[in-house]
Amino acid sequence: MTSIVVNSSKPVKTEKKNYTGNGLVYVKNPHLDSMDEDILYHFDLGTKTHNLPAMFGDIKFVCVGGSANRMKAFAQFMHKELGLKGDEKDMEDICAGTDRYCMYKVGPVLSISHGMGIPSISIMLHELIKLLHHAKCCDVTIIRIGTSGGLGIEPGSVVITDTAVDSFFKPRFEQVILDRVVVRSTELDKDLAEELLECSKEIKDFPTLVGHTMCTYDFYEGQGRLDGALCSFSNEKKLDYLRRAYNAGVRNIEMESTVFAAMCRLCGLKAAVVCVTLLNRLHGDQIRASHEVLLEYQQQPQKLISMFIKKRLRLWNPEESLSSI
Amino acid sequence: MTSIVVNSSKPVKTEKKNYTGNGLVYVKNPHLDSMDEDILYHFDLGTKTHNLPAMFGDIKFVCVGGSANRMKAFAQFMHKELGLKGDEKDMEDICAGTDRYCMYKVGPVLSISHGMGIPSISIMLHELIKLLHHAKCCDVTIIRIGTSGGLGIEPGSVVITDTAVDSFFKPRFEQVILDRVVVRSTELDKDLAEELLECSKEIKDFPTLVGHTMCTYDFYEGQGRLDGALCSFSNEKKLDYLRRAYNAGVRNIEMESTVFAAMCRLCGLKAAVVCVTLLNRLHGDQIRASHEVLLEYQQQPQKLISMFIKKRLRLWNPEESLSSI
Repeated sequence: MTSIVVNSSKPVKTEKKNYTGNGLVYVKNPHLDSMDEDILYHFDLGTKTHNLPAMFGDIKFVCVGGSANRMKAFAQFMHKELGLKGDEKDMEDICAGTDRYCMYKVGPVLSISHGMGIPSISIMLHELIKLLHHAKCCDVTIIRIGTSGGLGIEPGSVVITDTAVDSFFKPRFEQVILDRVVVRSTELDKDLAEELLECSKEIKDFPTLVGHTMCTYDFYEGQGRLDGALCSFSNEKKLDYLRRAYNAGVRNIEMESTVFAAMCRLCGLKAAVVCVTLLNRLHGDQIRASHEVLLEYQQQPQKLISMFIKKRLRLWNPEESLSSI
Repeated sequence: MTSIVVNSSKPVKTEKKNYTGNGLVYVKNPHLDSMDEDILYHFDLGTKTHNLPAMFGDIKFVCVGGSANRMKAFAQFMHKELGLKGDEKDMEDICAGTDRYCMYKVGPVLSISHGMGIPSISIMLHELIKLLHHAKCCDVTIIRIGTSGGLGIEPGSVVITDTAVDSFFKPRFEQVILDRVVVRSTELDKDLAEELLECSKEIKDFPTLVGHTMCTYDFYEGQGRLDGALCSFSNEKKLDYLRRAYNAGVRNIEMESTVFAAMCRLCGLKAAVVCVTLLNRLHGDQIRASHEVLLEYQQQPQKLISMFIKKRLRLWNPEESLSSI
């Protein structure tokens, strides 16, 4: 995306945030009103084939994560946590007609997988935001529950993102639109991050902190890993880069947070990113923890989000302990 | 990735192709030899836990595509086409231990899903290239079998990519390494494209052509769609962009070809991209074809690749017709 901007006669445009302020999800597209039907292709849903307000109108919390299995497990966990009727094992994938994403509804909570990387989550977010708009959802909070590589913190720590930054430690997301590059802010909702940090203080079994999250376009060369099929730099150069990231305030590295922050902000969705760290990148590149340990790590953000949702719904009883996932 | 290069004191580096010439898959990473174990995390495979040469040493063809269901269907189709023993329904996912990708082996053919977008396919390619290297595979041909949006051609047409280009119609892939942007060539193997075009002449039931494929970082704003959650441009601006793409030689648009071409080229893998077009973007943005029609479209590249593989294996009998998928 670089050289063109250097060469281009067209300037790089910077976009400002634009809220409606009425709690509705804001679709910033004048063309949508003139469409007689909207097919959400990657969800296998549509405005003519499905009654979206009836199916989704009561949604207040949307939780997204990369892995389909993890987001199903989270939906089943929330079903237990919210004390809903029926067997959580019978939960049906609303997007069963496609294998691009999976989606589960648990009362006011929607759990969706988004795959790996910025392009994959951006397709999901475009269709999710249109879905919430068509369903006339109001006051929706959206949280990415992810896994990440940690920087200078204990594996298993949970990072609540204050600002998502790119590979150059800048709080921005660059969106190519036709042949123009538009720069978008990646700031997340500060009050929501604070509220989540408060919740975490009541869960003793894992450390939680607030920090910057670096979002890259790949897992190997882009994150300074020495163990990919291609690697052209030394261990010293790698550590120098990771230390500079740490000094810039980065505490974890993943692959979706900048576009997630940018799109949610533009569409008036209060958004947070809560990721567990699977390793400390200053100590290595390969994820060596056992399946059991990794599974336990992945449950940490889910426990935190469950407590947050139950508190918001006034279902939280300080005496009770969280049911196991 | 733009402004930094403008600001950066570090220059943009251009990489040259680097073949070993002995038919082996070339891993361009001096650090790998010093690792006592290599965990291919997103495949749930490893050099200590699995005998990779025994499992994969005979692989000659690797076929990749975005959708897990489609790549399973392709593996089952190839099982029938190659006349292998056993029931193709019993085929097991080699990556069953993870839900990031799925992988099926059918004789000398490996069928793998890669999800959507450049970051998702790049993680898969790093681990696939290391897998082929560890397994000591030789003379491997890799083909991406995908779906795409067409430009000025009939829906259902199959495009064999000669060169993958970015959103600015340039034959390049920009890889961020630490805080440097490296530009890589996206040229594909011309002889392989020619061989595939020759094969297509024997299949009458769908049009096949050779053209440039444009690879974008998202499906909506990045491909000039008017039906996303965000859209800031007019139908006229969209059509002007798509027409300029057409005039630059682009015949279809997808989201993985540039990094696929760049990485395969650097690692000495003869690579091709063969995508069916689901719609003509000059006529619209939404994919309105029925499931049945889309399913039929998706079988076209599979039929072509099956014929190519059977010809290479000298299993092709001009008298026989392809079994239905």
